[in-house]
Amino acid sequence: MQWKKVGSTGSADVSAYVIVLDPGDEAIATLSEFSRREGLSAAQVTAIGAFEGATVGWYDRRRRQYRRIVVDEQCEVLSLAGDVAIGDEEPQLHVHAVLGLADGSTRGGHLLEGRVWPTLEVIIRESPAELRKTFRPEVGLALIDPRASDG
Amino acid sequence: MQWKKVGSTGSADVSAYVIVLDPGDEAIATLSEFSRREGLSAAQVTAIGAFEGATVGWYDRRRRQYRRIVVDEQCEVLSLAGDVAIGDEEPQLHVHAVLGLADGSTRGGHLLEGRVWPTLEVIIRESPAELRKTFRPEVGLALIDPRASDG
Amino acid sequence: MQWKKVGSTGSADVSAYVIVLDPGDEAIATLSEFSRREGLSAAQVTAIGAFEGATVGWYDRRRRQYRRIVVDEQCEVLSLAGDVAIGDEEPQLHVHAVLGLADGSTRGGHLLEGRVWPTLEVIIRESPAELRKTFRPEVGLALIDPRASDG
Repeated sequence: MQWKKVGSTGSADVSAYVIVLDPGDEAIATLSEFSRREGLSAAQVTAIGAFEGATVGWYDRRRRQYRRIVVDEQCEVLSLAGDVAIGDEEPQLHVHAVLGLADGSTRGGHLLEGRVWPTLEVIIRESPAELRKTFRPEVGLALIDPRASDG
Repeated sequence: MQWKKVGSTGSADVSAYVIVLDPGDEAIATLSEFSRREGLSAAQVTAIGAFEGATVGWYDRRRRQYRRIVVDEQCEVLSLAGDVAIGDEEPQLHVHAVLGLADGSTRGGHLLEGRVWPTLEVIIRESPAELRKTFRPEVGLALIDPRASDG
Repeated sequence: MQWKKVGSTGSADVSAYVIVLDPGDEAIATLSEFSRREGLSAAQVTAIGAFEGATVGWYDRRRRQYRRIVVDEQCEVLSLAGDVAIGDEEPQLHVHAVLGLADGSTRGGHLLEGRVWPTLEVIIRESPAELRKTFRPEVGLALIDPRASDG
């Protein structure tokens, strides 16, 4: 992984990071660790690139857990979009992805794991605000709660 | 629906809103009403989350109308992207969406209706400019016309 | 194609362009030429709209080339995302797209060609930095290299 900060810095303005993942990097772990190290408290994440394999999830409302869908083949990352917010006192990454297979068909879901090959070009756009997640027992998930958020 | 304004305010700089929709909210109506209330005249919209049902459209060039495609099941909102511009003297929302089903396959189109469950995390990034739509009879739709736009 | 510059200008802040493509415009050629003419050295590209036909690619790792997938029908551009960086001394556009067909199914890949009908609403968000691509022989592609990038 290599990265650089671009855009305005040192003020309340939005700043941005360009992060390029290397072959073999796992996207969720790498970007989660980056978010913790940089202390991100509210950010928007987008990316394109490709995976040599991924696991996506579909949230099963009755079981209150993600059903895992394995995409065990080389695939283009057609869309990767999501955010970073504070949950359990640390930055949490939440991203969804659409993947393109060799015949042009697509698969997608909540991104649980993505093994990069050859690259993933990520832009993280920080916000001066802070966003916090609150656990919602009726749903079984922690969701962003603007009323609990400072900034 | 809950929201907060983030980013720079009070200047010509770009400002942004984080809007979190609640279970049962209909995305298009809720975000259209928000755009009118805030007086948005040019903005970019993105979101992730999930719907318990949605209707998307494919524009039928011969019939000059959208064919309606109903997705009557719980689905992840993998990508939701679009814009707000002024048409008929008020802000109009135009968004496309890709939806992920339980088996990881996807459906998508021009988003006509989306019933949120459990959440939709939306970012609206305002622009200091104004964008206007002009009806194009040869197409049957009002399209953004930068030449008709101030700012 | 028509366009206007929106957002802050004349400083180190991020500026943005709204570009609206016309029926018959080919998206990759039009946006590549725009990037060269404006001298973009680092930018993020997003769009929605529709194509009357497109060709997308899936990168074949063994052959070191894109497999071409032709989508020869009217389709909604559900997601178009990517970036501009400097390669071979000029701005190079790299975008991925998800396309929605008449039955709501989707196709997608690395966008090689897209013939616009009736519109493509594009936002290009420039960054004050410069991003450079470096050819990576082990991959067969030029990839963004933050370490080789100024700014």
